[in-house]
Amino acid sequence: MRGIFISFEGVDGVGKTTQVERLRGYAESLGREVMVTREPGGTPLGSAIRRLLLHGVGGQGDAPGAADIAPRAEALLFAADRAQHVAEVIRPSLEHGSVVITDRYLDSSLAYQAGGRELTAAEVRNLSLWATGGLLPRRTYLLDMDPALSHARLKCDEDRMESAGDAFQRRTRAAFLDLAGREPDRFRVIDASQGIEAVWGAIKADFDQLLGELA
Amino acid sequence: MRGIFISFEGVDGVGKTTQVERLRGYAESLGREVMVTREPGGTPLGSAIRRLLLHGVGGQGDAPGAADIAPRAEALLFAADRAQHVAEVIRPSLEHGSVVITDRYLDSSLAYQAGGRELTAAEVRNLSLWATGGLLPRRTYLLDMDPALSHARLKCDEDRMESAGDAFQRRTRAAFLDLAGREPDRFRVIDASQGIEAVWGAIKADFDQLLGELA
Repeated sequence: MRGIFISFEGVDGVGKTTQVERLRGYAESLGREVMVTREPGGTPLGSAIRRLLLHGVGGQGDAPGAADIAPRAEALLFAADRAQHVAEVIRPSLEHGSVVITDRYLDSSLAYQAGGRELTAAEVRNLSLWATGGLLPRRTYLLDMDPALSHARLKCDEDRMESAGDAFQRRTRAAFLDLAGREPDRFRVIDASQGIEAVWGAIKADFDQLLGELA
Repeated sequence: MRGIFISFEGVDGVGKTTQVERLRGYAESLGREVMVTREPGGTPLGSAIRRLLLHGVGGQGDAPGAADIAPRAEALLFAADRAQHVAEVIRPSLEHGSVVITDRYLDSSLAYQAGGRELTAAEVRNLSLWATGGLLPRRTYLLDMDPALSHARLKCDEDRMESAGDAFQRRTRAAFLDLAGREPDRFRVIDASQGIEAVWGAIKADFDQLLGELA
């Protein structure tokens, strides 16, 4: 495939969206076609699956809700979303030669399921790799920050705050760092507590080097 | 698990529903609690997933339809349906001690995907086994018949006829027989071209023997 596949990972509030847009603008300024996408919900089927996951299958009354979805069924639905995202969006764009930048990918499934659920990280990883046909990003930028700081950035968003407590955020951060440690060639861990320009500077420098390697 | 897990398999028109009801009545007459279920659609989540698979994600206009679902996403959605069916219906009923009789299970996924698609039977089987936590029926009754005969039985049902041509039915039958040959302890192949009473006699005799083994 002629394109370049980049993912951004990290807990909510670390500034992924801002940096995704910086990288989009930069790659376009170099004359590259760019496809920016995201998980969850990168395709219509994915959006429908996510609605099932978030809101359950019924709409009213005593219909079963999301809480009734079995762990393995849930993992398979996430994997189905990812399979469709890869087949419909990511792979065709890479074959077209684009720079594909996704806001979250497989590592988010691994990090957010770490420490919870009855499934092992290896099971979830194998499932995701099968779903994607083994497609991993060439580079993954992990924006890393003390959860207390990313919390502060999100302070106006109370729903998100309530749905993700401190301990959960710390566990998820640790899980991301563990994943990065296992694949140092793919991951770059960026200190996201720096200012936006410093974070972008680190990403740009690495991206320039990556382009050099691929040239 | 104290219950007994039985599946019926075979192409449409071979008389599975009739024999499922015969076995239900017989097991109940012996004082057993019986749970009869089916795939697809054994749970509300499963029904919602099947609607996605059959009708696609949009409802109108140029929204993507079922034809747009990628093969891996499709296989993962079928597996999610099965995972939920096992977790919500089959496993709890078995733990309760019931005789669980399902009209179609994992073997149908394998048989119907054989000869089509880009996925291997081994991949689909591994996915299904992971979805079910490795739960296989204690006994699988494969009702087997020349497709020309089952065709005739279905002749008033034109939708089904159109959606499944002769070559497809023959391939599916061969795939079922191949599966039965690989697991002779689990499968019993029943000649479904016999009359209903003869078919039931064969199933009853085997079920009595199975009860004896389990006593």
